Amino acid sequence: MKVTILGCYSATPRTFTNPTSQVLEVRNHLFLIDCGEGTQVQLRKYKIKFSRIKHIFISHLHGDHFFGLPGLISTFRLLGRESELHIYGPKGIKEAVTLFLKLGDSWTNYPLIFHELESKDTELLFEDDSVSVSTIPLDHRVYTNGFLFKEKPAPRKLDVKATTKHNIDRSQFNNIKNGANGKTANGVEVANQKLTLDPPNPKSYAFCSDTAYNETILPLIENVDVLYHESTFLESESRLCQKTKHATAKQAAQIAHKAQVGNLILGHYSTRYKSIDLFKEEALEVFPRVALADDGKSFDI
Amino acid sequence: MKVTILGCYSATPRTFTNPTSQVLEVRNHLFLIDCGEGTQVQLRKYKIKFSRIKHIFISHLHGDHFFGLPGLISTFRLLGRESELHIYGPKGIKEAVTLFLKLGDSWTNYPLIFHELESKDTELLFEDDSVSVSTIPLDHRVYTNGFLFKEKPAPRKLDVKATTKHNIDRSQFNNIKNGANGKTANGVEVANQKLTLDPPNPKSYAFCSDTAYNETILPLIENVDVLYHESTFLESESRLCQKTKHATAKQAAQIAHKAQVGNLILGHYSTRYKSIDLFKEEALEVFPRVALADDGKSFDI
Repeated sequence: MKVTILGCYSATPRTFTNPTSQVLEVRNHLFLIDCGEGTQVQLRKYKIKFSRIKHIFISHLHGDHFFGLPGLISTFRLLGRESELHIYGPKGIKEAVTLFLKLGDSWTNYPLIFHELESKDTELLFEDDSVSVSTIPLDHRVYTNGFLFKEKPAPRKLDVKATTKHNIDRSQFNNIKNGANGKTANGVEVANQKLTLDPPNPKSYAFCSDTAYNETILPLIENVDVLYHESTFLESESRLCQKTKHATAKQAAQIAHKAQVGNLILGHYSTRYKSIDLFKEEALEVFPRVALADDGKSFDI
Repeated sequence: MKVTILGCYSATPRTFTNPTSQVLEVRNHLFLIDCGEGTQVQLRKYKIKFSRIKHIFISHLHGDHFFGLPGLISTFRLLGRESELHIYGPKGIKEAVTLFLKLGDSWTNYPLIFHELESKDTELLFEDDSVSVSTIPLDHRVYTNGFLFKEKPAPRKLDVKATTKHNIDRSQFNNIKNGANGKTANGVEVANQKLTLDPPNPKSYAFCSDTAYNETILPLIENVDVLYHESTFLESESRLCQKTKHATAKQAAQIAHKAQVGNLILGHYSTRYKSIDLFKEEALEVFPRVALADDGKSFDI
């Protein structure tokens, strides 16, 4: 798993900062999360292949999280895309995007499939052999979801050394990879676990933006490898959190601590602060493993 | 009059090129023409004061001419704008923009006034003491207007030397500025024209994008000081003009020649060409005064 931050600043796009968008690479997928204005230019800048994006997850319908979507969808059309594009986002997103396309008389020539969300409980949005994606209901001024991306356990790997040691014939390798026990030349059964290696631990990534401090998400994000949690403000501006339904860096760290996550990435910074280092300093007082998102930065998970 | 090109490339925003948007300074106005995705960032980059923009003219509802509008309107709100904003554009623009704002539950806290257009004849959109703006109906795949910006003649200027020569008392200066004749100390009347200087010629600017070659616009743009005319293609791709309703550089020059304009600015280049110099070369074969628009370039009119 690898997440690339295309934009992580709140409110408005500026000359050197971009509103929220991220790309998550996991197994053979490239998921786009949120799509603020300018996302398509950021995708070009970081040489992310447009055709690999098949699923776009939109947290909520504030401009800094989705005003880049009609343009991206149109660009896909202009580039001759033919494959399906799935959009997951709050109810209303379909009407909004299709109205923009209709007004320009430029409907897509590829299948554009909307999955509109309105549940306040977690929902499974996507699942295949290797990955699942589900919602993390958040607490913001408008209906908002975070997203939880979980790898499924990979199959166990054949331990070639062990097969030699136990004198297992190659003809059994495929069956062993699929979970069968082995049999030695003398007909003695050898347990599958002795002939295979543990696969790497499946990874998980939780994207939580935008949201007020909200402990109800703890069971959903418990033990994730990486939590991206918004930190629009510092504690010195915590009075603004109630009204705007945003969180401080300290609050993000409290959530990370209580959910016992592996690492915390902060983002969605208000542009009132001179340095984003202040967010890290504040979070480190509560939780030890903190990284700062910044436009163009990638994190291996 | 001065026009600043914020973006002048067709189709999609890219790392180093922007879709259509321009700012026209004329007398005390700052008019924004079209608003492709990323326009607000371009405005910041070229240090154009957001608060000076009170009128936005949208030619048509293709993404590369208006997908930056919801974001710009939202940013005005976030910056605490209080003054009226007038949007002129094709019917449907109000529904589209307001739907985006409604979904984000972020209606403006300043008056947002839409002037929806659907006439196929030229219309006067705005007029005050110093400037008028009217539509130039164009021929494109969707309903499209260009815009004609015309200064009104400024008042005649007092010729101080002439007042001395004719022995005119200072007490008459204001009346003379307002058009009255003067009177010498001896009571002899002196015609206003002898005591005042011609004001500078009023300037005019015509924005014509997007459009196929269309001679019906000639009477509207005749003798304008500067014509911005789209040139999406070169003649080598003229076969594409019919289907896409765009023009070649040569066609733009033919329009400039027939309308006897002062200068021609080309723009809305397809990104298939390696150098935009090719557009100028082609146009120069037909019309002698050709300039190339490019992002960030300004032209005094």
